Amino acid sequence: MKRAKVAYAGAIHEAVEKDGRLQLNDGRIVEEQNVVWLPPVEPRTVFALGLNYADHAAELSFKAPEEPLVFLKGPNTFIGHRGQTRRPADVDYMHYECELAVVIGRPARNVKREEAYEYVSGYTVANDYAIRDYLENYYRPNLRVKNRDTCTPIGPWFVDKAAVQDPMNLTLRTYVNGELTQEGNTKDMVFDIPYLIEYLSSFMTLNEGDIILTGTPKGSVDTKVGDEVITEIEGIGRLVNTIVGDETFGIKETSKKVTSQQTT
Amino acid sequence: MKRAKVAYAGAIHEAVEKDGRLQLNDGRIVEEQNVVWLPPVEPRTVFALGLNYADHAAELSFKAPEEPLVFLKGPNTFIGHRGQTRRPADVDYMHYECELAVVIGRPARNVKREEAYEYVSGYTVANDYAIRDYLENYYRPNLRVKNRDTCTPIGPWFVDKAAVQDPMNLTLRTYVNGELTQEGNTKDMVFDIPYLIEYLSSFMTLNEGDIILTGTPKGSVDTKVGDEVITEIEGIGRLVNTIVGDETFGIKETSKKVTSQQTT
Repeated sequence: MKRAKVAYAGAIHEAVEKDGRLQLNDGRIVEEQNVVWLPPVEPRTVFALGLNYADHAAELSFKAPEEPLVFLKGPNTFIGHRGQTRRPADVDYMHYECELAVVIGRPARNVKREEAYEYVSGYTVANDYAIRDYLENYYRPNLRVKNRDTCTPIGPWFVDKAAVQDPMNLTLRTYVNGELTQEGNTKDMVFDIPYLIEYLSSFMTLNEGDIILTGTPKGSVDTKVGDEVITEIEGIGRLVNTIVGDETFGIKETSKKVTSQQTT
Repeated sequence: MKRAKVAYAGAIHEAVEKDGRLQLNDGRIVEEQNVVWLPPVEPRTVFALGLNYADHAAELSFKAPEEPLVFLKGPNTFIGHRGQTRRPADVDYMHYECELAVVIGRPARNVKREEAYEYVSGYTVANDYAIRDYLENYYRPNLRVKNRDTCTPIGPWFVDKAAVQDPMNLTLRTYVNGELTQEGNTKDMVFDIPYLIEYLSSFMTLNEGDIILTGTPKGSVDTKVGDEVITEIEGIGRLVNTIVGDETFGIKETSKKVTSQQTT
């Protein structure tokens, strides 16, 4: 089973796929282009993993971490499928990151890895954009890298756990303007899903609706205003995102960079 | 004006102080000991500052940061006034941190410091406990240090901005079992409130209800099960917290430490 959350005709609905169209939970069948897709799960506590694929750590010239590198993301950063991500006007490097998102189904505390999947409700796809300009010489990223408005598209579908045979063997692919630019497999995670649930629940409670973004493989490249970026995970979904300029909103970035002099 | 949020007689109420007792928003007057105090503001996006008082940075042997060191905290960590904080069974160092909490009143994006207070609705007191065992050699703390369940008491009161003449000149004090152990003043912040709002809003949107925990001065010491810890800020409130053992909940910590070998 997979379901989306969409805005249509003045209200928010859950929806399922029906012969290439969407069936709302009140029975109406609507065309995809007539809805606004929202994140399929309300972002509550969202954990993100840094450097959880060794090949990606290597391409950033970091060594893979010895324990999970986890940070939190705020609700301002999430948008749905077919959404617009604003590229800050004054940055040089904005990299997509295709990631499997794991949704927690019930409270989890001190869970052993052997039982971890019992606490998972399902999966979705995330694109955890990073503003590389502000990446420092340590790998737990700061908010300028990872917490910008609109910079984490998520969706389109919440896919029930029962529909995913082996979440640790799924191909991830990213396409920029139709060209394949990133390809990997969840089996190459440094810390797999059961390990992450055991780790996090060993020192805090995971709650229903919490989301773990499990990291991205090698192949991040810069993206520009106007690009269409599709992050796709086998059996989970194909998340479409468009990058727009910040000037659309009349905003000029004025913040200074950490790593380089601001040009005037 | 100052108001609390309390649970009483099967429901949650806003409450104000009335001659040493609490008046609920339905008019009833109740004794403080008959309510459960909750966080006075719903924790949504909560920012916390690392090393925002130079004397505190020095006591941890770090140099003061050149730009604000900000991280996010999850909702699992917050509890109200007179709440119980669980001390993990397998840690050696649990330090309180008395902090002024700034509550955002309306959406803020690209706000200049001269106008920053227009975006503040009010203040409260936080005690941002840190599990020092897991503090690494870099100063942006990981989730094991700063995101444990119940480890951020906040309250008792939300104090309206209009009631605080100069938030940058308030005495902070912490008492452990009645003994004064920490004393500082908000005027010694490295990055003051207007700077923090300008900084954060320069790259993301701050929203109504977001909270900024502005850091703690020198004087953090270890606390033990059974301790009563009172963090107090002049004109804002006096937040009482009790430390209890994790075994109360039948939980044994099994996570390994980063910095030392686990004893068996």
